[in-house]
Amino acid sequence: MADGGGGAEKRPRGVQSLELRTYLAGQIARACAIFCVDEIVVFDECGEDAKSVEGEFEGIGKRGKACVQLARILQYLECPQYLRKSFFPKHGDLQFAGLLNPLDSPHHMRVDEDSEYREGVVLDRPSKPGRGSFVNCGMKKEVQIDKQLKPGVRVTVRLQEPQNPETKVRKGTVVSSHHPRTVSGLYWGYSVRLASCLSAVFSECPFKDGYDLSIGTSERGSSVDQVTLPSFRHILVVFGGLQGLEAGVDADQNLEVTDPSDLFDFYLNTCPSQGSRTIRTEEALLISLSALRPHIDEAVKTPTDS
Amino acid sequence: MADGGGGAEKRPRGVQSLELRTYLAGQIARACAIFCVDEIVVFDECGEDAKSVEGEFEGIGKRGKACVQLARILQYLECPQYLRKSFFPKHGDLQFAGLLNPLDSPHHMRVDEDSEYREGVVLDRPSKPGRGSFVNCGMKKEVQIDKQLKPGVRVTVRLQEPQNPETKVRKGTVVSSHHPRTVSGLYWGYSVRLASCLSAVFSECPFKDGYDLSIGTSERGSSVDQVTLPSFRHILVVFGGLQGLEAGVDADQNLEVTDPSDLFDFYLNTCPSQGSRTIRTEEALLISLSALRPHIDEAVKTPTDS
Repeated sequence: MADGGGGAEKRPRGVQSLELRTYLAGQIARACAIFCVDEIVVFDECGEDAKSVEGEFEGIGKRGKACVQLARILQYLECPQYLRKSFFPKHGDLQFAGLLNPLDSPHHMRVDEDSEYREGVVLDRPSKPGRGSFVNCGMKKEVQIDKQLKPGVRVTVRLQEPQNPETKVRKGTVVSSHHPRTVSGLYWGYSVRLASCLSAVFSECPFKDGYDLSIGTSERGSSVDQVTLPSFRHILVVFGGLQGLEAGVDADQNLEVTDPSDLFDFYLNTCPSQGSRTIRTEEALLISLSALRPHIDEAVKTPTDS
Repeated sequence: MADGGGGAEKRPRGVQSLELRTYLAGQIARACAIFCVDEIVVFDECGEDAKSVEGEFEGIGKRGKACVQLARILQYLECPQYLRKSFFPKHGDLQFAGLLNPLDSPHHMRVDEDSEYREGVVLDRPSKPGRGSFVNCGMKKEVQIDKQLKPGVRVTVRLQEPQNPETKVRKGTVVSSHHPRTVSGLYWGYSVRLASCLSAVFSECPFKDGYDLSIGTSERGSSVDQVTLPSFRHILVVFGGLQGLEAGVDADQNLEVTDPSDLFDFYLNTCPSQGSRTIRTEEALLISLSALRPHIDEAVKTPTDS
């Protein structure tokens, strides 16, 4: 899922105050959680990259401020409540984020909830040689994992069945963050990536072979109803901002195409016969992901050729 | 489209302040406009009807306050901007409504926009005997219609081609508010109806033969993907509040069923495999209407038996 999040300050009818921008970020986060999106890419459709170095976003680099803000709030919302203190120190961008509707996704566990997996943070507490680190997984008991890891690291833990209810700690093993989804079919939140322009959405893909199916969404695309999607490993769905994907293509000096439809395997109108002249990004996400879902489900059922 | 709008004050995690409730109403209005909904029915899922007589809603009667407020904001948003002064005197419920995103639907015309139809208000200005009333249709020129109507009435006007650009007034004929949609295929906004309970959504239907196809939406319904809808004249899609349609059924003393699925021709889950435990009403509207749209389009194409 890639979303033209930048340049909000430039849009006269766009979102303005931090409070409203926060609410918008919350809507984007919820739409992505509802439809089990694994990665959100926020790209700067205005190519602000070189012009603005405001904002800080550890590990990803400096980008346009609106994009950084959006990405930060998205990350905050994805993080289970009990881990937010560890990973999100007080920040102006998050001033209103506490008021947002929670994602309520399977990895946001309540304290007493029983679950095979939990997200946790490695604690700064010595453990005996040969034993693993202690992890706060948001339960009453701490979890001792199978490895020694650096304090402060976020980990996905697979919990062992408690052998003895009297023990002070639970035991668990560290797994990849993809594990709950790929092995147990549990939606496990999304990662967030910033891209300085539309082309970087593709070129900086975290998957070795890139996205093997890409869909651009646009009022000017062909109707979603007739489409048959091929099977895929990594699908990317791209949304433009208020000016559509055209703006992102125009602003991107790396792109030689002028017609955004040339960038994607499919260029689809996910809401034919719309009764409003404009559809806002937060609406387009829910509408498009809902319209695409049966087509994606169908494609997943189809066996891959390779 | 019927929506359990009542009892917002009762829900601990529901919408609270008037500002947020206004924003929610705006999202509902936009979702309905995007998907060309003709009627919005706000029903009181808590059966507050007899208990609360707060709020006023001319022409419909006294209902629970939250429902009245929602209905009022929905009506306000449906009304073209240039007519709001005539139909919506200052009211506390509308305090924040001016800040909402506009519907941007075809009947919300800008002053210079060319259109075959326009919404207007009959002006309190004498016209010569045998001539029709003057109407403000939000253009620079007033429109003289073919009938004498009571000042202050809202009318849908079909404009005649201007014979002479020099004339001070345009000519037009009054048509039914359904005319632009049924004759010219233009989405022309929605009407708003209040219902005191879920059963009244059906029993007080404005169409002589009622709704001939009804769909309840629920996480506990069957998947929307497999459904084939029959052809219909008037389809009703019903959404529950945070407690689902079950709450509306429980609270309604007129209903003998206990299983809400018995009330509807179809009881559908419009978002199978959702990645969040809860879907909020404003999200459910966009998701469900988007998921149902291709099925409804298909049903409309199928010729009716009768």
